[in-house]
Amino acid sequence: MTFSIDSLITQKGRLLATIHETAKWGAKGVWGTRETETGVCRLALSDLDKQVRDWFVKETKSLGCEVKIDQVGNIFAIFPGKNQGKPTGIGSHLDTQPNGGRYDGILGVLSGLEVLRTFKENNYVPNYPIALVNWTNEEGARFPKSMVASGVWAKQIPLQECLNLKSLDKVPVSFGAELKRIGYDGQTKASYLENPLAAHFEIHIEQGPILENEGKKIGVVTGVQAFEWNLVTVKGRSSHAGTTPMNTRSDAILTASRVIVMAVETALKHQGLATVGTLQLEPGSVNVIPNIVKFSLDVRHVEDEILATIMAEIKQKAEQIAQENVDSPHGKPLSIDFENITSSKAIKFNNTNIKTVKDAASQIFKQDEIREITSGAGHDSCFTSTRVPTSMIFIPSKNGISHSPEEYSSPEEVENGFQVLLRTIVLFDEMRALQKA
Amino acid sequence: MTFSIDSLITQKGRLLATIHETAKWGAKGVWGTRETETGVCRLALSDLDKQVRDWFVKETKSLGCEVKIDQVGNIFAIFPGKNQGKPTGIGSHLDTQPNGGRYDGILGVLSGLEVLRTFKENNYVPNYPIALVNWTNEEGARFPKSMVASGVWAKQIPLQECLNLKSLDKVPVSFGAELKRIGYDGQTKASYLENPLAAHFEIHIEQGPILENEGKKIGVVTGVQAFEWNLVTVKGRSSHAGTTPMNTRSDAILTASRVIVMAVETALKHQGLATVGTLQLEPGSVNVIPNIVKFSLDVRHVEDEILATIMAEIKQKAEQIAQENVDSPHGKPLSIDFENITSSKAIKFNNTNIKTVKDAASQIFKQDEIREITSGAGHDSCFTSTRVPTSMIFIPSKNGISHSPEEYSSPEEVENGFQVLLRTIVLFDEMRALQKA
Repeated sequence: MTFSIDSLITQKGRLLATIHETAKWGAKGVWGTRETETGVCRLALSDLDKQVRDWFVKETKSLGCEVKIDQVGNIFAIFPGKNQGKPTGIGSHLDTQPNGGRYDGILGVLSGLEVLRTFKENNYVPNYPIALVNWTNEEGARFPKSMVASGVWAKQIPLQECLNLKSLDKVPVSFGAELKRIGYDGQTKASYLENPLAAHFEIHIEQGPILENEGKKIGVVTGVQAFEWNLVTVKGRSSHAGTTPMNTRSDAILTASRVIVMAVETALKHQGLATVGTLQLEPGSVNVIPNIVKFSLDVRHVEDEILATIMAEIKQKAEQIAQENVDSPHGKPLSIDFENITSSKAIKFNNTNIKTVKDAASQIFKQDEIREITSGAGHDSCFTSTRVPTSMIFIPSKNGISHSPEEYSSPEEVENGFQVLLRTIVLFDEMRALQKA
Repeated sequence: MTFSIDSLITQKGRLLATIHETAKWGAKGVWGTRETETGVCRLALSDLDKQVRDWFVKETKSLGCEVKIDQVGNIFAIFPGKNQGKPTGIGSHLDTQPNGGRYDGILGVLSGLEVLRTFKENNYVPNYPIALVNWTNEEGARFPKSMVASGVWAKQIPLQECLNLKSLDKVPVSFGAELKRIGYDGQTKASYLENPLAAHFEIHIEQGPILENEGKKIGVVTGVQAFEWNLVTVKGRSSHAGTTPMNTRSDAILTASRVIVMAVETALKHQGLATVGTLQLEPGSVNVIPNIVKFSLDVRHVEDEILATIMAEIKQKAEQIAQENVDSPHGKPLSIDFENITSSKAIKFNNTNIKTVKDAASQIFKQDEIREITSGAGHDSCFTSTRVPTSMIFIPSKNGISHSPEEYSSPEEVENGFQVLLRTIVLFDEMRALQKA
């Protein structure tokens, strides 16, 4: 008695129209001539965030959802099923970067909404409830801790730490105070135990160029790579650019430059990624050799062990580079120090979820249009995966661009992603019913 | 009838005592436990500069000098000679860097004062007048043009450009307005034609480690190396550190790092100097690949032609590095641009002056204690050398440090320098008399 998904009538183009409609709450960053060709700036717990939340609550209630707000403002819109039980979750976020686009996070929440709308207008009742979740402050752009609210729900971050987070506004305010101000300080426990999900699916733009470059339509996300952030400090000696012979220098920017090139080459050798995103030097005068250079080093790999190998190799070679400066009786070595800022282990998503996404995608696309992929960026699914079966779906990002107003996926790609999500949710829901039977 | 220099009685230690006495006008930057172990912050045309100028005028007048102030505040204290004629100049500057030391510039002016004091108390009358010059704003730290007032005197910089210079103070003020405020807007023409010198001698700390490292006591400065400053801009593409494969990146900081290493190696190959003193990148977030890096590149060589060769080689190789980024079908080249900020030709000092300094030093030191040396830094003598016979004397700088409170030369080194200057002035003055006779 398996339900035929193809009997569900979908409204082509409505999801994209909704994406553009909700972009009015924060439209910013014009990059083209059409009205829809802007990005979005909708910082977490801002007035604009309140407006899109109010709209989201109204829309989901009109579909018959019960709406629960938890202690960190996560919104769970629960679409009823035939049976009681933990809801199958679809989640992502409606907050954006300050110079964000129209798709990052938003695509995930609104694709889930489109699933519920499709169910509703087809009078389709799933076997179990479906929870559409808007996670708070995924970006960490206003309150500087990414994915903090899914982290609290998963009991990986203490509630109070989240509520006490200070914003990066000119006049800093706390997460808790802003939550209260916009009326989203809910009563539901922010806890996977007291407000549980049966699973978590998230559709997202890739934010990288792999699908586009390889001509793939759908990414079946199997996990998230491990990463480690270090603040690297090189200390040498400051002196005059004109009067200091080369063989007596301890030039911190020269050593830092050698270390940066080496770090990238080392990561490359192991099929990892290495990025220097920030760099400051002192004293910062054209004719003064810098004595201090500090730079960030972000290194990633899909395997924890290989990431550790890369980092060990980088540190050992960096020490060598700093020592090698001594090429004359008057040279002095520099010091180099790595301070770990943050580490994140590799995440492997749930095999059943991955298979469900793959089966759903296979209903529409040929095998060579589908690709397994590892997420390079963090998502709320990283935290949910620590507590419930989780996986993700990627659609292509034009030129791999994201966190930019120019972030773009074509109408066809947006539609493709929705169709895969719809089938994933139906397949997963049917599987739950079969397992129970 | 040659005068015997050894008949002049000098006051050992008085010069150093005067250096420390005048440091009260701006003492700042404690680096040791003794009262004299601080640097000096005495910005050009500040209240502190006025105080040291007032003292300087009073001191030189008390020695019988006629004091002339020119239109840009240069002070000429003219000690009379037996004959009329252009004065033999001794000059340097009493202004300092914001984190300056006790010797840079100050040593030159106060050593000249010690020469005049010695003449006065020995009742020694030179054949020709001696002009002790305090040049305004040599450092360019407050009004951002180094050696601007000697430049005006030498007609290399227009008077109005100097007077219009805006200070780097929080509330900027003009050079002309500050000159007036402190009462040093003089009537004497700022011109080598209307207020001439017969020659210019300057004693200065080396500001580098060469004399110290080689155990030399006196540097006979034969010229100043050429230099060129460029602002180098590398443009790539910004994208996410986690989601952008290495072979699709146009990483501006990676290319900049390769260019920095290459520039230093290229300069080194040609016995030149290369320094990156400033570097900014955008957008400046740990997990975002920088799309723009701007850095300063200061390249120096004693020969103009070799400096040109080094710069051409750096630019050609930099272009190659930016293009070589394309190592995959999805890579894109970066752009690299060199903007010349300033250029300065190599300066060769006057041979007669150089020989006079060498003869003077040889009266006191063994040949292997004296070394010919090229100045790495610019000095007021660079501008005077374009109009009148000029040369300089260097004494060692501890650890080559300058533009720092820790700038230091020992009491013995300060005394050595003074003795060489005294003999240089007497020898030069006698030579002038002989030539005339």
